[in-house]
Amino acid sequence: MSKLNTNYQKLQAGYLFPEIGRRVKAYANSNPDKQIIRLGIGDTVRELAPSVISAIHKEAETLANQKTYTGYGDSEGTLELRQSIQDYYKQLGVEIELSELFVSDGAKSDCANIQNLFEKPVVALQDPAYPVYVDSNVIAGNTYEAVESGQYNGLIYLKSSLDSDFLPELPTQKVDLIYLCFPNNPTGAVATREYLQTWVNYALENQAVIIYDAAYSWFIKDQDIPKSIYEIPGSKECAIEIQSFSKFAGFTGVRLGWTVVPFDLKTSDSKEKQLNQMWTRRQNTFFNGASNLAQAAGVAALSEQGRKENQMVIDFYMENAKLFKDCIQGLGLKVLGGHNAPYVWLETPIIEGKKLTSWEFFDYLLNQIQVVSTPGSGFGPGGEGWIRLSSFGLRENVLEGISRLNSLKESIS
Amino acid sequence: MSKLNTNYQKLQAGYLFPEIGRRVKAYANSNPDKQIIRLGIGDTVRELAPSVISAIHKEAETLANQKTYTGYGDSEGTLELRQSIQDYYKQLGVEIELSELFVSDGAKSDCANIQNLFEKPVVALQDPAYPVYVDSNVIAGNTYEAVESGQYNGLIYLKSSLDSDFLPELPTQKVDLIYLCFPNNPTGAVATREYLQTWVNYALENQAVIIYDAAYSWFIKDQDIPKSIYEIPGSKECAIEIQSFSKFAGFTGVRLGWTVVPFDLKTSDSKEKQLNQMWTRRQNTFFNGASNLAQAAGVAALSEQGRKENQMVIDFYMENAKLFKDCIQGLGLKVLGGHNAPYVWLETPIIEGKKLTSWEFFDYLLNQIQVVSTPGSGFGPGGEGWIRLSSFGLRENVLEGISRLNSLKESIS
Repeated sequence: MSKLNTNYQKLQAGYLFPEIGRRVKAYANSNPDKQIIRLGIGDTVRELAPSVISAIHKEAETLANQKTYTGYGDSEGTLELRQSIQDYYKQLGVEIELSELFVSDGAKSDCANIQNLFEKPVVALQDPAYPVYVDSNVIAGNTYEAVESGQYNGLIYLKSSLDSDFLPELPTQKVDLIYLCFPNNPTGAVATREYLQTWVNYALENQAVIIYDAAYSWFIKDQDIPKSIYEIPGSKECAIEIQSFSKFAGFTGVRLGWTVVPFDLKTSDSKEKQLNQMWTRRQNTFFNGASNLAQAAGVAALSEQGRKENQMVIDFYMENAKLFKDCIQGLGLKVLGGHNAPYVWLETPIIEGKKLTSWEFFDYLLNQIQVVSTPGSGFGPGGEGWIRLSSFGLRENVLEGISRLNSLKESIS
Repeated sequence: MSKLNTNYQKLQAGYLFPEIGRRVKAYANSNPDKQIIRLGIGDTVRELAPSVISAIHKEAETLANQKTYTGYGDSEGTLELRQSIQDYYKQLGVEIELSELFVSDGAKSDCANIQNLFEKPVVALQDPAYPVYVDSNVIAGNTYEAVESGQYNGLIYLKSSLDSDFLPELPTQKVDLIYLCFPNNPTGAVATREYLQTWVNYALENQAVIIYDAAYSWFIKDQDIPKSIYEIPGSKECAIEIQSFSKFAGFTGVRLGWTVVPFDLKTSDSKEKQLNQMWTRRQNTFFNGASNLAQAAGVAALSEQGRKENQMVIDFYMENAKLFKDCIQGLGLKVLGGHNAPYVWLETPIIEGKKLTSWEFFDYLLNQIQVVSTPGSGFGPGGEGWIRLSSFGLRENVLEGISRLNSLKESIS
């Protein structure tokens, strides 16, 4: 007599982005004449780099020929791609062994699956945070029921706010697993070397493990901001890093990422290299490797030429971010992010004497000026009263969005 | 104080194929002059179909152009691909709704992850079976420790043997989740309509759910053998079907598959459409869709022209299977499969008065004639005394392998 996994019933509402999709679709169906501008979801819009396209064509020809065709690869990824990733770390002054690298079909899968290595961990995460960290732990049974605020009992929310530049303080209790994302999604906050060192020290002292989501490191401009947690001494003993090709190379649809599980990583009860071996076994069992097409594309994206081409696109997106920030500052609203991060994080306004919630402002922007944003509260209660704008847009859309936002000046100031 | 997920410690030995890889590598390193023939792992070796290659080039050009570029897609897969899959089922006389279809990055991931829908199920599976069914349930905590035979307490092994043509009987106790794979990997056994109906009836009577792995259905020649579990009345209330592009279209490296979770699927405690909705939520959270390159390739593989081109490759592999069967029969060994299935399943011989175990015969073939097979016991204790040969090989390798096998006639008869 089969029964449902009851953890699913704890989940609050739908996953954020499908929910936004449903609201936008409903609005579009009722207002077929309105032109909607999407400034919400962090989806890339610029074409793939020329060197990446060449690599895909070349791989297709490799697969078109019986003499060069390849089938199953190692679930950990091709040697060539792992060497390219190893070189990426070398340029940051970080030494990573090839067997510490696990190529994936994107950061989302690994962010969701990585909790499986641990036994009923007490999980701490930034609030607001990427919903996958929370939802995957709910489904895994690492939480209790949600309370009225939408928060789950058993999860430790590391509250952040404007006062602390959205950089949370260390937990006051002992936790086992800590999700950190810098540059942050959704707030655009970045972590200094000193700040990250306090987390590494906490983890080492408490035998906790940090899951470091570095998917947005490519947008860091300031030289002194670390791009990898492994730039911090002691981190290899306590941190797993998850990376993505989605945002820096436009691979949101191509699907490619990687995860580093260092040999030195420890839990309170682990033997030498054991976590690395467990993740190897997990990936061998649950995964058959990323697409060979995506992996060939990834090698090109990390090549010198690919990096150059992709940097131009990153600069383009960051120019969008600057345009947004200027606009929002002009509207007199508080705004963060958008400097070393592609996300712009702005406070909801007071309209007719009432401070809007995130979803109210989302609906207001959709209904009044047909602009799609991402409600901050969708990233957790700590995001309430804020929304996220994404700089991943075509210039004409960004400018049109800005023009529409400016039209609200009278109403929201 | 983080701790390891102790379920991993229950796992026996390495995952089968990496273990084979290690033994072959060790042999090759010690015998650099020997030419090894790989007849073991079910990895495709023929180039991709011309229409599939065209589709990859075309998708690359789509992504090369800002006007046609696409990023994130629905985690369930593109509409075009799901429509192609829907048409595939229509040709079998089966009606599937688009929202019942979930495109994946291959059958392995879904076979491993699908158990997550259920609460501590009592799991039954064919013995021998594809190791992923077992290992994923061990890691998920749905079993107890392994006993000496390598079997796990808490799992129900549906023993099959030569006497029953490797078709297991119904369990004598109540089980919740049943993994069935036909045409079978590794034995090559196929299920008739009547046989599958007994399983559907059992599942309906016991409110159990069948996970039906149909990855090899493309190799069925006999008209009266069902290609999908949904050809069996009542199955939509009790069966999930998992499919793959790996073997029929050579996508072992490209990575693409799909899973059907019917609206009507029930557990003892489910509401209408609830399992379908849960899987939607699971995929939205843990997965961001298969690569757009792979999905475009998949549409081409399922097109009329793609099906024609792929059928020629299937026929080629099945001719390999026939050559193997003739050879093995000539050696006087018992052999199954290889007719409606790409795998050839043969009994280990008696050598010098001793019946060899699977791994002994594996090592014997590797050492004596440098042929790599797959030991049947790697698929579970029920496979002990058998090995699997795979028809996924180039003709020259198959013929060379057969010539080497024939050289053993004196020793093994």
